[in-house]
Amino acid sequence: MAEKFVYEFGARTDGDAKMKELLGGKGANLAEMARIGLPVPPGFTITTAVCAAFTAKGGLPEEVDAQKNAALANVEKQVGRRFGDAKDPLLFSVRSGARESMPGMMDTILNLGLNDETVLGLAAATNNPRFAYDSYRRFIQMYGDVVLEVHAEDEHSHDPFEEILSAVKRSSGVQFDNQLSEANLRDIIERYKELIQKVTGRSFPQDVHQQLLGAIGAVFKSWNNQRAILYRRKYGIPGEWGTAVNVQSMVFGNMGPDSATGVAFTRDPASGENVFYGEYLIDAQGEDVVAGIRTPNPIRQMEKDMPAVYGELVAMRKKLESHFHDMQDFEFTVQQNKLYMLQTRNGKRTGFAAMRIALEMERDGLIDQKTAIGRIPADSITTLLAPIFDGKEQAKAKVIGKGLPAGPGAASGKVCFSAAKAEELHRCGEKALLCRAETSPEDIRGMLASEGILTSRGGVSSHAALVARQMGKVCVVGAATLEIDYGSRSMRAGAVTVKEGDEISIDGTRGEVYLGSLATVPSEINQVLEGTLPAEKSAIYGMFARLMEWCDGCRKLKVYLNADSPQQAKAGLRYGGEGVGLIRTEHMFFEGGRIDFMREMILAETAAEREKALAKLLPMQREDFIGIFTAMEGLPVNIRFLDPPLHEFVPHDEDTQRALGKKFNIPFERIRARVEALKEFNPMLGHRGCRLGISYPEVSRMQARAVFEAVVHCKKQNIAVHPEIMIPLIGFVKELRHQADIVQEAARAVREESGVQFDYLLGTMLELPRACLRAGEIAEIAQFCSFGSNDLTQTALGMSRDDMGSFLDRYNELEIFTQNPFATIDMEGVGELMKIAVERARKTRPGIVLGICGEHGGEPLSVKFAHAIGLTYVSCSPNRVPVAKLAAAQAALT
Amino acid sequence: MAEKFVYEFGARTDGDAKMKELLGGKGANLAEMARIGLPVPPGFTITTAVCAAFTAKGGLPEEVDAQKNAALANVEKQVGRRFGDAKDPLLFSVRSGARESMPGMMDTILNLGLNDETVLGLAAATNNPRFAYDSYRRFIQMYGDVVLEVHAEDEHSHDPFEEILSAVKRSSGVQFDNQLSEANLRDIIERYKELIQKVTGRSFPQDVHQQLLGAIGAVFKSWNNQRAILYRRKYGIPGEWGTAVNVQSMVFGNMGPDSATGVAFTRDPASGENVFYGEYLIDAQGEDVVAGIRTPNPIRQMEKDMPAVYGELVAMRKKLESHFHDMQDFEFTVQQNKLYMLQTRNGKRTGFAAMRIALEMERDGLIDQKTAIGRIPADSITTLLAPIFDGKEQAKAKVIGKGLPAGPGAASGKVCFSAAKAEELHRCGEKALLCRAETSPEDIRGMLASEGILTSRGGVSSHAALVARQMGKVCVVGAATLEIDYGSRSMRAGAVTVKEGDEISIDGTRGEVYLGSLATVPSEINQVLEGTLPAEKSAIYGMFARLMEWCDGCRKLKVYLNADSPQQAKAGLRYGGEGVGLIRTEHMFFEGGRIDFMREMILAETAAEREKALAKLLPMQREDFIGIFTAMEGLPVNIRFLDPPLHEFVPHDEDTQRALGKKFNIPFERIRARVEALKEFNPMLGHRGCRLGISYPEVSRMQARAVFEAVVHCKKQNIAVHPEIMIPLIGFVKELRHQADIVQEAARAVREESGVQFDYLLGTMLELPRACLRAGEIAEIAQFCSFGSNDLTQTALGMSRDDMGSFLDRYNELEIFTQNPFATIDMEGVGELMKIAVERARKTRPGIVLGICGEHGGEPLSVKFAHAIGLTYVSCSPNRVPVAKLAAAQAALT
Repeated sequence: MAEKFVYEFGARTDGDAKMKELLGGKGANLAEMARIGLPVPPGFTITTAVCAAFTAKGGLPEEVDAQKNAALANVEKQVGRRFGDAKDPLLFSVRSGARESMPGMMDTILNLGLNDETVLGLAAATNNPRFAYDSYRRFIQMYGDVVLEVHAEDEHSHDPFEEILSAVKRSSGVQFDNQLSEANLRDIIERYKELIQKVTGRSFPQDVHQQLLGAIGAVFKSWNNQRAILYRRKYGIPGEWGTAVNVQSMVFGNMGPDSATGVAFTRDPASGENVFYGEYLIDAQGEDVVAGIRTPNPIRQMEKDMPAVYGELVAMRKKLESHFHDMQDFEFTVQQNKLYMLQTRNGKRTGFAAMRIALEMERDGLIDQKTAIGRIPADSITTLLAPIFDGKEQAKAKVIGKGLPAGPGAASGKVCFSAAKAEELHRCGEKALLCRAETSPEDIRGMLASEGILTSRGGVSSHAALVARQMGKVCVVGAATLEIDYGSRSMRAGAVTVKEGDEISIDGTRGEVYLGSLATVPSEINQVLEGTLPAEKSAIYGMFARLMEWCDGCRKLKVYLNADSPQQAKAGLRYGGEGVGLIRTEHMFFEGGRIDFMREMILAETAAEREKALAKLLPMQREDFIGIFTAMEGLPVNIRFLDPPLHEFVPHDEDTQRALGKKFNIPFERIRARVEALKEFNPMLGHRGCRLGISYPEVSRMQARAVFEAVVHCKKQNIAVHPEIMIPLIGFVKELRHQADIVQEAARAVREESGVQFDYLLGTMLELPRACLRAGEIAEIAQFCSFGSNDLTQTALGMSRDDMGSFLDRYNELEIFTQNPFATIDMEGVGELMKIAVERARKTRPGIVLGICGEHGGEPLSVKFAHAIGLTYVSCSPNRVPVAKLAAAQAALT
Repeated sequence: MAEKFVYEFGARTDGDAKMKELLGGKGANLAEMARIGLPVPPGFTITTAVCAAFTAKGGLPEEVDAQKNAALANVEKQVGRRFGDAKDPLLFSVRSGARESMPGMMDTILNLGLNDETVLGLAAATNNPRFAYDSYRRFIQMYGDVVLEVHAEDEHSHDPFEEILSAVKRSSGVQFDNQLSEANLRDIIERYKELIQKVTGRSFPQDVHQQLLGAIGAVFKSWNNQRAILYRRKYGIPGEWGTAVNVQSMVFGNMGPDSATGVAFTRDPASGENVFYGEYLIDAQGEDVVAGIRTPNPIRQMEKDMPAVYGELVAMRKKLESHFHDMQDFEFTVQQNKLYMLQTRNGKRTGFAAMRIALEMERDGLIDQKTAIGRIPADSITTLLAPIFDGKEQAKAKVIGKGLPAGPGAASGKVCFSAAKAEELHRCGEKALLCRAETSPEDIRGMLASEGILTSRGGVSSHAALVARQMGKVCVVGAATLEIDYGSRSMRAGAVTVKEGDEISIDGTRGEVYLGSLATVPSEINQVLEGTLPAEKSAIYGMFARLMEWCDGCRKLKVYLNADSPQQAKAGLRYGGEGVGLIRTEHMFFEGGRIDFMREMILAETAAEREKALAKLLPMQREDFIGIFTAMEGLPVNIRFLDPPLHEFVPHDEDTQRALGKKFNIPFERIRARVEALKEFNPMLGHRGCRLGISYPEVSRMQARAVFEAVVHCKKQNIAVHPEIMIPLIGFVKELRHQADIVQEAARAVREESGVQFDYLLGTMLELPRACLRAGEIAEIAQFCSFGSNDLTQTALGMSRDDMGSFLDRYNELEIFTQNPFATIDMEGVGELMKIAVERARKTRPGIVLGICGEHGGEPLSVKFAHAIGLTYVSCSPNRVPVAKLAAAQAALT
């Protein structure tokens, strides 16, 4: 049998909700809704498999075309009208639909099938010429933009179709589209067609089948438009997936006051509250709502406007949640009082909402615990931990606007009226706050670069709200009292005028806008953890604590923290960190006056001189370790020995060099010469890591002694200690053996001097490809290994994180990276080395403790990878501990 | 049964020649000689397995001690004397013996078993008190030095035993040791004992069993002395092997004028000529010959001195070669006209000798071709290719000395009278020529650092000759007319005085010393290859050609050459290179005025500007390629696209920057800013390799076009061309695909423009760990892959070759590297990645051509590794082609 490329939905439905890979999310859910009897206008889906073929061939393969025509004929039968029929034409919408929703990223065409002839038929059949011409006008505009590529010339010009529309509105003295007369619309249609003729050199296509093919092609092509690529990059969606195309018979929300169109959520997607939520417009088509041009009405108002339909919608809300077991974001159209469902999907939600919905649905028995845990994007819970405005300051602050709370949290920054300006500020390290009348897909980069987003128009399903939810940005939409004037780069808020660059603050939980930059306090969760807020006073803490308890109950990976001070250790401990997976001892050398002793050590010319300087550093290191051991009482604490090149410690300017010379009575010239000698061509591949401890064994000896003396001190105070000593940058097992001997000897000496017995573990970082390959013999000595995924990425890829700036953009653009390998572990390359290492190390020492302590340790996909290859723990910065726990739990449950 | 740690030889023999790993070379061959009936004094070997155990325990394990005592008792029975017997004592020699010979590196003790009592017994039993006291004197001296560690305090002081000896000789007015009277000897013995008492605080041990244990321990310990470690490092001998200890009953060459000791070679080890060769001393012990203190007599003189023994020796020579099938280096002792064999081993030989002996033995049916090929150290044949003195100049040059030719070749340099001075000059990049009365193991570093070695004393088996042979150094020994005066740092040669730092030349083939630095001409082989010398006039060329023919007949690996110019390509072709495996196109950009166009390209701010500059470079590149294609007609030519960071091309000093600005009419500030912007933290891991071609596709486009236009040009001239385009530094398959598309498009365009059809191969370097791991998918596009072993070593080990200087010595000292990984492929790490890559690439594309083009491509061990993992070719610098061919043949035959 030939492969099936076209799936129908309606009276006959081929697909279902599980077929998202093939049909895309929209197509699969249209099929599912049809299957369970919801009122879905019939249509068909051309599968994602065709996307690549279409791109390669530049057109529809023949067999797909045949299947499409067959499906089209079936739709004609069901609705009893024919495509292109001059009397009573069947119209279609053509929409994209990828495996994962990419809202607003790709193209859509409505009212397809209208031409100079069928528009007359539609007018006659509906007995509504105004409606027919409005639909034709919309169709030409969309088709002209999307398929024929008649656009504004650049981001500063106006859309040429909108210009014609505005001109006619102006000359007729009307404010809104739905106030245009039939004559106005016919006028607009003629002008649109002239525009197209002028720009493209061809007339607007009258053949409806040609229209359909053009639209299908445009949707497939839109998979590779710039904004879609940017979006995929941000969310890690592979370009290979492709989009499906949904061709659906049209229903009309623009057939007059008994028609409407809307978007609704089964719960509040910003706060997660279990209320019916959404918005609609009377006498409009779907795109009007999302575009945010007219501010739509809140859904509850429909109870008054269209009570019967509202009743149906409330029933629909219940039915959807009980069938899909998740919060749904659905689109509907009311055509002359009849409700149609055009789409449903799992609603995007903020981190706050994700947690609340998951916990409440579990409580209400709608989903089980495992599902609930899986529902919360691990990364998103960092938003719960972000600082909030100081209540007292907020009470005093000047509120200059109020809108809909679309992305919870607190954000302050300099006002930017364009995405470009926001990007510019961000590059300079400043905080930007993007303020727009409404946002569009072109603004995505600027939105990414901003602390928060504020719009004066549009509702909670507007583009700004949608994207902010997904990005986890603080957002207030539809703050209608703000009058933004792009021309003067300023915004009026009553008596106040805010200029570009002025500071404002927005509260995305309350929907308020304030003048100036408001002070912040720790998040509620942190206030509870720090003991300044009683737990019972914070609902959000209650939810967070419950979630963490669930995670602790099911995850296999332990979660450690990277800490360089007792403060950091305590912070991570509050979040439930189970040990310290990395102390970068060198960080301790930078504090206060210590750096000078470190420099004295580096400048020493003999081992004896070095030992003299080291003797001064020893008590300081010991105190540090005592502090962290005490904070982490009873938990493992992993101390990494000196790692960075010595060059990083010495001063490079003459003044400091001279001052240092004076302090230690060393000639300036000697210092300068030594600093010069320490310079390296490729410091990342130079004299660092264990190579230092091997060249200067006295450094390792001092560090080992500081650790063990701290252990003895703690043991004498009855503080349980589990020290682990980690040797960095091992490539050869003999390096490890050399350092292990030094450590062992120091332990013996300290035991003997103190009379106190203690245990410790000795291990190493696996951060060089060679170390991964030799993990079998390394594990003969190492009692644990921790992957240093930053260095391992740099060496495996031969790519320095510090130097990749010159080609990173290009690499992203070409999709050479699917993810930035320094953010998410490069599973195919670096991950392969890790797998080899795990296998070989475990073969030698089956129970060996294996972890990861690079920055990947707190990144959800990398945590899941760590679980998948059987690591024992991940170690991350303290504030990533909850993220890592959640990701670890999710990994364990899938 | 308990493990056997002690193997006997003599009337009962446990071992044989095959057991070198366990018994060491000396022990195994002693056993073998005993087995085939040669006159070997009985004894036993303590195995190499005990070496590590001894080091760990600091003494002999109990079971070994018991086995040793049993063997000792057997020896006593055989010789009919007892160890420590006061009447007629059995004496022993105790010698080291590792798996591979390490001449002079470890310690030896003779005459063990003498004490104040047994010396009387020996005197009585031999009726030769002088001999007995001489032996005792020697024993105390050796034992004192080796076991009790009574040495000179530093390299400038005299040996304290030698000082006593000299003092007595002076006061008694005798010149040589063998002229000392019994009374003198007893005096010396007393003074020796006092010295030992004074330095060690203990008296010289009288217990013979304690003596034996001490000696065994000292030999084991000497495995880890500094000079042994240095030697092992140079020759890649693992520290784990350990040495065996040979305890053998003494025979005496110092029993008077009917006794003698000597060293002989079955052929000339310097020239390889098939003549009996060697030297001996009457009334001496073996150490006297090797130490070079008395210049020994050439072996042929024995025909007169001891005709009967000489006859036996000649017979022995024949027997040894016909049994061992190789040139033997053997030691013998004549005790009162009776010949004893003390050792035999395959003789070390120069590169010249190795080739000649192998070829002649094969010709004479002593060995087969396969064995002959295996006998020539691949690296050693580079000595055959080294320049020789210009015959005309040499004829006119002032000969200031004549000695024995001990290391063929021509060397000029500044005279150095100490090893330290030679090292110092070498470090400063100057050519040193080490001149010593004699050399000792302490001089090894200095010998390594010298162009050649000249001694005024000692014969062809002296330390200098021995080491020079093995190192492949030019060497003249025993140039007796030279009077070296260390005090005044000068050397008298008749009327001429040569000061330290003056230039001289030595001809190690003729044995002559010349004043001044003589001009050189290409080696005979090169003269023949270049057509300036008829082949039939050069015997050495004949041998070389025959050897290469053999190699070509059996090797599996192809040998390509790295070339950046037609000249280099031709040079490699003369040596039989079978293609160009690497053109570093960037080298072409440095030539002449081109660098400025390259700079113009780099300084360009837009793709259009870049293309303008590239258009100027294109014809130059094309000409280069035409030149190499023409030189390599019909053979594959592999062109690597631009690889190094752009920073390497731009000027870093202000003057050049300003001049450049003037030339291209670019403001100086822009140039400076651009140069600054190109700086990278870790250029090795930065914007280079294919990353350049991806950022600036126009560069790859230009290079592809230059290649293809050159191809078209050649095809029009009927020159067969096989171009291969190689993309550097691939990590991700998408990088390769991107560059492949550009190349493909250029090929299409050039084919279309020219109307000429041509083929080419497209491939990539495998020089990043990630690339090795992803070789499977890379091979979907790459038609060949070449390992860039330099970069692969840098990334796999995380070690920059440019920066490792700061810890390399330390790493060598600690034996963390067994070989320098940038000289010989790190088989355990880098090699493992290569194996993975080979396996995965071949799985995708079974017949894929795989090669190596890093500097390892001309290093014998790496070539053998390349063969072992199934590569198709190695590519190396032109003058390494013969080495690679020989190594490849050897790999194929083992």
